[in-house]
Amino acid sequence: MLGPGKADLLEHIRETGSIAAAGRAMAMSYKRAWSLVEEMNHAFRAPLVDSSRGGAKGGGAHLTETGEEVLANYRALEETIAEAGADRIETLRGLLRDAPESPPDIPEGK
Amino acid sequence: MLGPGKADLLEHIRETGSIAAAGRAMAMSYKRAWSLVEEMNHAFRAPLVDSSRGGAKGGGAHLTETGEEVLANYRALEETIAEAGADRIETLRGLLRDAPESPPDIPEGK
Repeated sequence: MLGPGKADLLEHIRETGSIAAAGRAMAMSYKRAWSLVEEMNHAFRAPLVDSSRGGAKGGGAHLTETGEEVLANYRALEETIAEAGADRIETLRGLLRDAPESPPDIPEGK
Repeated sequence: MLGPGKADLLEHIRETGSIAAAGRAMAMSYKRAWSLVEEMNHAFRAPLVDSSRGGAKGGGAHLTETGEEVLANYRALEETIAEAGADRIETLRGLLRDAPESPPDIPEGK
């Protein structure tokens, strides 16, 4: 129903006031952004995004009250589980092979 | 590094003693199961799965100590975050459109 990608899309729609612009900010096609919005609008009791296509100002989009509520709860959920799971995640991370912290320096002149 | 699919694969390997059988239990190709095991074995400091190919008994596989530790921590993480996030998840679920509990009855004779 909702994952990190859709939550980010909702956030970008709130910021940009446009589904197309939100999609662009995420390097997502216009069609894909619309399709995700339609999925979300259908999955919840009330639409999360209200939009008007075309018109003199090229349409626009904003989060509905339900959209704001869903996004707020999702972000709160993310925070809660990151906090609650921190110790276990740290343990798992500690078992991972060391990843390089940053790419090696490129020698001058290359 | 690790998600629900890989964790389930580890569990099936522990139960069946075989990467091929674990893959079959998950309707996964032999090649895919091996590739996931190789990814995990490489991602962590020590391999998670120890395996022997071929031989009279057709080879076998089992979780290493690190494999057991990773799986235990992952399952504990899942429990912790499900518990910590229960209220938020409940709120989000309550905002979802009602899903049908079961498919409608098929009239007799169809």
